[in-house]
Amino acid sequence: MYCIKFILFVMLALVVLDSSARDLEELREKANSIFQPIPEDPPEIQGNPSNPVKVELGTKLFFDPRLSRSGAISCASCHNPGTGWADNIPTSIGHGWQTGSRNAPTVLNSVFNIAMFWDGRAPDLKSQAKVPIQMSIEMNNTPERVVATMSSIPEYVKLFHEAFPEDEPVTFDNVARAIEVFEATLVTPNAPFDRFLRGDDNAMTERELRGLDRFIGHGCVACHRGINVGGNAFFPFGMRNAPDETIRPPDDKGRAKVTGRKLLHEFHFRVAPLRNVALTAPYFHSGQVWDLEESIRIMAKSQLDATLSEQDVRDIAVFLHALTGDQPEITVPVLPLSTADTPRPEY
Amino acid sequence: MYCIKFILFVMLALVVLDSSARDLEELREKANSIFQPIPEDPPEIQGNPSNPVKVELGTKLFFDPRLSRSGAISCASCHNPGTGWADNIPTSIGHGWQTGSRNAPTVLNSVFNIAMFWDGRAPDLKSQAKVPIQMSIEMNNTPERVVATMSSIPEYVKLFHEAFPEDEPVTFDNVARAIEVFEATLVTPNAPFDRFLRGDDNAMTERELRGLDRFIGHGCVACHRGINVGGNAFFPFGMRNAPDETIRPPDDKGRAKVTGRKLLHEFHFRVAPLRNVALTAPYFHSGQVWDLEESIRIMAKSQLDATLSEQDVRDIAVFLHALTGDQPEITVPVLPLSTADTPRPEY
Repeated sequence: MYCIKFILFVMLALVVLDSSARDLEELREKANSIFQPIPEDPPEIQGNPSNPVKVELGTKLFFDPRLSRSGAISCASCHNPGTGWADNIPTSIGHGWQTGSRNAPTVLNSVFNIAMFWDGRAPDLKSQAKVPIQMSIEMNNTPERVVATMSSIPEYVKLFHEAFPEDEPVTFDNVARAIEVFEATLVTPNAPFDRFLRGDDNAMTERELRGLDRFIGHGCVACHRGINVGGNAFFPFGMRNAPDETIRPPDDKGRAKVTGRKLLHEFHFRVAPLRNVALTAPYFHSGQVWDLEESIRIMAKSQLDATLSEQDVRDIAVFLHALTGDQPEITVPVLPLSTADTPRPEY
Repeated sequence: MYCIKFILFVMLALVVLDSSARDLEELREKANSIFQPIPEDPPEIQGNPSNPVKVELGTKLFFDPRLSRSGAISCASCHNPGTGWADNIPTSIGHGWQTGSRNAPTVLNSVFNIAMFWDGRAPDLKSQAKVPIQMSIEMNNTPERVVATMSSIPEYVKLFHEAFPEDEPVTFDNVARAIEVFEATLVTPNAPFDRFLRGDDNAMTERELRGLDRFIGHGCVACHRGINVGGNAFFPFGMRNAPDETIRPPDDKGRAKVTGRKLLHEFHFRVAPLRNVALTAPYFHSGQVWDLEESIRIMAKSQLDATLSEQDVRDIAVFLHALTGDQPEITVPVLPLSTADTPRPEY
C-alpha cells in the first residue's frame, strides 16, 4: 500500500517536473525570440576599429576633467563607474552648477542602442561624446580648446599618434573616436537573464522567471526587446495615458525637436534600455521616480492602460534586477601631466 | 708608451669612479639622516586597527557621492585618483559651485603627515574626513543625514557591522574611521628616491642626484625633511621675504587662526609634503603657481632669501620628479543601492 502510494507520488512528481521543465524551455524559446544575450566581448565599431592603445587613450580621456573648461568635470563625473555609469541624481550638475533637463543615461551597453540620448539625436557614441563636452551647461568647452589641451601634453600626443597613425592625429574627432572605443568595452555580460537565455536552468530564480513571464505576457516587450531590453526604437511616452507632468514635463517634447515633426513625434523618446536598470535610479528622462516598482506601475498605465496586480509589479521588478550583469572593473588611469602650454581651468 | 698611457688612464678612471662611488655613498648617508623611504605596506593607525572589510567600506565611502547633500560630490571628486589624489585646479569646486580658498592637498601618503589641512587644524585623517563632508561650500552635509543615508542602505549596514562589531556601528565617527583606514592604504612606495635611499645606485639619474645634493645644500631640508619630504612641521611662509599677494593672500593667516596666536603664527602653514609633487600642480595653498620650477624660485626667495642659479632650479625640479612613487591601483567600487528610505539628493 505504502509502496503503491510512493510510486504514485514519484510518478506525479516526475510529471510535474517534466511539465515545469517544458514550461521553462518554452519560456526560454519565447525569450530568445525577443531578446539576445550581451556578448562577453565588446563589439567592433564600423569605421572605428579598436586597438589597445586607442582603448587606453579613450580610458584616459573618459576620466580626464581637462575635457571640461573648469578642469573639474570629466565624462566619469556624470557617468560614474560606482553608480552604474550614470549618476543617481535626477538630472546632472554641470558647469557653474547648472542642471540639465534629462536624467543621465548609463554608458553600459550603450554601444548596442539604436542611437544616443533620450531623444536619439546622436547616431552613435562618437557623435554623442562631442555633445556634453561642448554644452555650456555641461562641460562648457570648445573643440579648439580640447585640441589645444591635448596638443600641449606630450604623453597624449604620443598616444594619439599611436592610436591614429594618420596625418593629423590630435583632432576633436579622434578624441570622440577614442572615447567611443573605450565606451564600447563597457558591456555587462553574464547577468542571470543572459545565463538563462543561453540555457542555464538555474540562472534565474522562480520569481525572476515569473517576472519575465509577466513582462512578456503584459506586452512590455512590444517596446522593451532586443539585446538591451529596449534602446532600439522610439515610441511615445504616454501611448495610452499621459503621465503626470512631473514625470513627463510638458515643455520637453522629446524626439519632435530632433525630427522637426512636432505632432507626429511629440513626447517620443528612445525606449529606455533596461540592462542594469536596478543600478540607475532615478528613472524616466525626468529622473523623478526613484522606485523601480513605481516606474513599472507608471509604464503599465501610460503605455498599456493597464493596472497590474501588486504581485506582478513585484515579480517584474525582481526580473529587472536579473538584468544586472558583470560590471566592468576599471582602474582609474593616472592622467598625463599638463605643461606650461595647457589651457588653465576656467571656473 | 701607449701601454703606460693606457695604464695611467685606467688608474685615473678607477680613482674617479671610486671617488664618485664614495660621493654617492656620502650623499646617501646624508639623505638617510634627513629622509626616510615610504614603506611598501600601509602603516597601522593608533586606535583604529585596519581590517579588510573596514578598508572595503572605506573605499566605498570615499567614492560615494551620497556623502554629499547634492549626491554629486564624493571625496574622490577633489581627491581624484587620476590626478595624484588631488584635483589639479587652484581651489576645489564644491556645493553650488562654491570654491574654497586653499588648494586641495593630495591624500597620497597623508597618513605620514603631522596633521591634516594646510593649517594642520585636524590632527589625523579621521578628524579630517569629517570636515569637507560638513562644510557648506564643500559637501554641505550633516552627520545626521550621513548616518540616515548609511542606515537606509542594507549593504552598508552589513559592512559597518562587520567592520565595527560594537554596539552601534553605523555612526558618523565610524564613517570617518573607515575612510581613514582606506586613505592610510594610499601610500606610494618605490619612487626612484626611495630606491636610492635603500641602496640602489642606479635608481636615480645623475641629474636627479645633483638636484638632491642642491636641495640639501641650499637648505630646503631645514623644513622639507622626513618621510614625506615635508608635512611634519609648521613654518612661516615668507620667513625671509613676503611672497606676492596672489600667492600668499593677505586675508589667509594660516595657522594663526587655528592656534589663536595671531602674531606668532601669522602665515604659518604646514610644510608642504613633496611626495608626488610633480602630479599635483598647481602649487602653494593658494594654488596659484602651475610651474614647479617657478615654485622653487619662489620658495628660495621667500624662505631662504636666495636666488638660485637656473641650473640648480632645474636640477631640483628634476629631483622632485624622482619623488613620484608607485600609484595605488584602485578599481572604482560598485556602490550599494539606495532604498526608499535613503535621503534624496538636494541641489
